[in-house]
Amino acid sequence: MLDIQITKTTSPKAKPADESKLGFGKIFTDHMFVMDYAPDKGWHDARIVPYQPFPLDPACVIFHYAQEIFEGLKAYRTADNTIQLFRPDCNGQRMQDSADRMCIPKIPVEDFVQAVKTLVEVDKDWVPHSDGASLYIRPFVFATDVGMGVHASRNYTFCVICAPSGAYYAEGIDPVRIYVEDEYIRAAPGLTGFTKCGGNYAASIKAGEMAEQQGFAQVLWLDGVEKKYVEEVGSMNIMFKIDGKIYTAPCTGTVLPGVTRRSIIELLKDWGYEVCEEHVAIADIMKAGHDGKLEEVFGTGTAAVVSPVKELDWKGDKVFISGGKIGELTQKLYDTLTGIQWGKLPDTKGWIVPVCKG
Amino acid sequence: MLDIQITKTTSPKAKPADESKLGFGKIFTDHMFVMDYAPDKGWHDARIVPYQPFPLDPACVIFHYAQEIFEGLKAYRTADNTIQLFRPDCNGQRMQDSADRMCIPKIPVEDFVQAVKTLVEVDKDWVPHSDGASLYIRPFVFATDVGMGVHASRNYTFCVICAPSGAYYAEGIDPVRIYVEDEYIRAAPGLTGFTKCGGNYAASIKAGEMAEQQGFAQVLWLDGVEKKYVEEVGSMNIMFKIDGKIYTAPCTGTVLPGVTRRSIIELLKDWGYEVCEEHVAIADIMKAGHDGKLEEVFGTGTAAVVSPVKELDWKGDKVFISGGKIGELTQKLYDTLTGIQWGKLPDTKGWIVPVCKG
Ligand SMILES: Cc1ncc(COP(=O)(O)O)c(C=O)c1O
Ligand SMILES: Cc1ncc(COP(=O)(O)O)c(C=O)c1O
Repeated sequence: MLDIQITKTTSPKAKPADESKLGFGKIFTDHMFVMDYAPDKGWHDARIVPYQPFPLDPACVIFHYAQEIFEGLKAYRTADNTIQLFRPDCNGQRMQDSADRMCIPKIPVEDFVQAVKTLVEVDKDWVPHSDGASLYIRPFVFATDVGMGVHASRNYTFCVICAPSGAYYAEGIDPVRIYVEDEYIRAAPGLTGFTKCGGNYAASIKAGEMAEQQGFAQVLWLDGVEKKYVEEVGSMNIMFKIDGKIYTAPCTGTVLPGVTRRSIIELLKDWGYEVCEEHVAIADIMKAGHDGKLEEVFGTGTAAVVSPVKELDWKGDKVFISGGKIGELTQKLYDTLTGIQWGKLPDTKGWIVPVCKG
Repeated sequence: MLDIQITKTTSPKAKPADESKLGFGKIFTDHMFVMDYAPDKGWHDARIVPYQPFPLDPACVIFHYAQEIFEGLKAYRTADNTIQLFRPDCNGQRMQDSADRMCIPKIPVEDFVQAVKTLVEVDKDWVPHSDGASLYIRPFVFATDVGMGVHASRNYTFCVICAPSGAYYAEGIDPVRIYVEDEYIRAAPGLTGFTKCGGNYAASIKAGEMAEQQGFAQVLWLDGVEKKYVEEVGSMNIMFKIDGKIYTAPCTGTVLPGVTRRSIIELLKDWGYEVCEEHVAIADIMKAGHDGKLEEVFGTGTAAVVSPVKELDWKGDKVFISGGKIGELTQKLYDTLTGIQWGKLPDTKGWIVPVCKG
């Protein structure tokens, strides 16, 4: 158990007046959780303080060698005004896996969850009330050593901040066009694809911007070795329903093991679907599309829950899916997961972690 | 031409008393160069100010998505007390290439060089006097937008800091043991290997630390696709002299195009050597070693100039080089390059850019 010192702000900010204009991750709550690491003390000095800047020496490792990792999850307000989290232990566990790869000292999963819960409780009035809106939570760890040597830092800071965020589908669920990226890659075996490290995202910006300029929502990454097998989309895992079966890339080091992905796989199996965690060639997906067997395609991630795909473009070849509408199974997954998250459906899986009354 | 506003510190730090204890990149000079980028203003507000921390909002992109690039070069003090740079335009050009890949707005090469020269002149008393010691210069650009969206930032800061650094070979040139990394990789086609972006270095820490624990100085990276061809070492390019010819990996996107590499290739060609910028299989290097044809192996980089390699370990197989001593050609390259850099040899190439009298 962390001993968390709480210092509340004396000048709280005004809460956003119009929840329909929140957007994603643009405004932040009154407080943040902070904890430091030093070699002789381990993780120490857990505290909640007013949201404030970090003064960083220009020679701090973070500016130069990007030794940093993060997580992303949400707090939901239910109809009976309970504030709750969805599988925060999965995020805590994934952060440990990221830490291990990036030579960052691990935070015990219980401490991670306690930090998140305590901060959300302090800032509970910031959890939005309107349908589909939620409090986005961003835990992150960054190296704080000062100096130019390329080494694991000795000192770190763990911080959690929160951003009240609008409904992802404020205008209704809108299937997206996806560009299959065949020049740039996101990951390769032996690199950091399975982690949420800053460098993965920096490297992905260029392809994302280029696709966006052409009217695509995100890119679909292919494997880094052969550029042949589908991996994931910009910030989501991706699933394909072909001939009744569900296919998605396996988590073998290059793909981020999404909490949503994992939850959806469990639901699908409960419902009797065959789920194949396999390397599937993009050529086979396109062929299934042309043969009328590609029934549904959807991204999965914390932000959108599911994001139906209506079009895939690969080297000029195009495939259109579900007549541009959300597929039946995609819709059922969306309803089930959001139902559990917002407390409209019973939590038969033990996925919900209540925080407090709102 | 930048209009650089200079604000000098009113409380200069004490200069290091013992230059033999400087180490690398640990202490910093009195000032730093800073310039900001905004979409409507471009790069603006060029200034030299006292060395000081940046106050960074915890939601600043830099903590989360590592949109950042850097450079590294040195200022040298000659016997007649001139302070000079070595090919700073090459660093400026390379920073543009990094910027392009990372969606960061480019800085004109002249402005980059002017920023470096002006800062070095302001802090000229910090350029070490002792043999082999120099002023390490670290230009870097980082994203400064606040918010959680994964996009190119709209705002950036360019900063230059300087660290007086000790002679790399204070105890004489000491050949090193190199571990050929066969699990982790550093780069792959379509990724960011040719850039100096923070993420490349964060991803490389783990392999480096593991090799160090086993007594190796650095790792030799193999290509990310087949793990078959040699690429570069931790923070240096690498060259192999086999049967009189020099082999080094080509700069085709995965390897950092070193300024030292490029300068050495030019010298070698002047001296009549055949230089092959080719993909060379590690198996062929090891075979050449066992056949007695691997005459010299050396890393090349700004920090060490050249770093002779005495041993390569690949999957348990070991090859020993030059009887554990620095090779004749490696020594000649070291003497020539350091001779030009410190003004002991004439600069027939136009590589030297004088800054000021010291
Ligand atoms: C690259 C990437 N893949 C997949 C995901 C989906 O993961 P999760 O379901 O845990 O949000 C994310 C978002 O976190 C991501 O950034
Ligand atoms: C990965 C890597 N390769 C090679 C080099 C050598 O480049 P340069 O000769 O420009 O210092 C460096 C150092 O800058 C480096 O970090």
